[in-house]
Amino acid sequence: MTTKQFLFLTTSVIASCLIVASPRASAEPDQPRIVRLAELEIDPAQLEACKAALKEEIEASIRIEPGVLTLYAVSVKDHPDQIRLFEIYRDQASYQAHLQSPHFKKYKSLTQHMVRSLTLVETEPLLLGSKPG
Amino acid sequence: MTTKQFLFLTTSVIASCLIVASPRASAEPDQPRIVRLAELEIDPAQLEACKAALKEEIEASIRIEPGVLTLYAVSVKDHPDQIRLFEIYRDQASYQAHLQSPHFKKYKSLTQHMVRSLTLVETEPLLLGSKPG
Repeated sequence: MTTKQFLFLTTSVIASCLIVASPRASAEPDQPRIVRLAELEIDPAQLEACKAALKEEIEASIRIEPGVLTLYAVSVKDHPDQIRLFEIYRDQASYQAHLQSPHFKKYKSLTQHMVRSLTLVETEPLLLGSKPG
Repeated sequence: MTTKQFLFLTTSVIASCLIVASPRASAEPDQPRIVRLAELEIDPAQLEACKAALKEEIEASIRIEPGVLTLYAVSVKDHPDQIRLFEIYRDQASYQAHLQSPHFKKYKSLTQHMVRSLTLVETEPLLLGSKPG
């Protein structure tokens, strides 16, 4: 099965989310969700390799790390070298654990010369609404 | 029950998503997911009213519209007047239907003099990964 087929098939198992983000929307009520945005500019000559590394890192993080809840990666239309990430972690400890994970460190190492610029944006969640596709 | 209590309680029913955004990740395989970002700057004097209108619009859209899959709203840390939205629609028709919905039109009307600037960013999904919180 190709990766593309895998991705297509897995869409059939999308479950879901009603809504979420009060500041106390976590297993421990005093622990707010951590939501971060990232804006990356990629060396166009290394774009495919970078996207492959990013996809591998996202798949591993969602599969392995209980506190990594959402990693959405998109590119800006007509600017494939501009990538935006939307990230939700269960709490601060989950985010810190993610930074120390082998798959994240591998991704950072692999892409260190592919990413021309990286802007990280810390946020406060207002309302995170979603449901099954 | 207050809205805050409602939001807190609903976190216990989060289901979810190993997701995925292949270009063919929809009920109709030829219809790609529509993912859009929005960057808003709000008049600080009207921030609370604007946030209330936005939350009402998100709750209604997720509840009523089958093709509105995700509406995530966050503010930039230490800049509460800067709001970012991350939006996923099932397909182009769902996005167009959303623009014509009564709750979206109400939101746009209510906030037309609250939003100082609005930047819309069209995107191409690379990989949308999430799971239950």
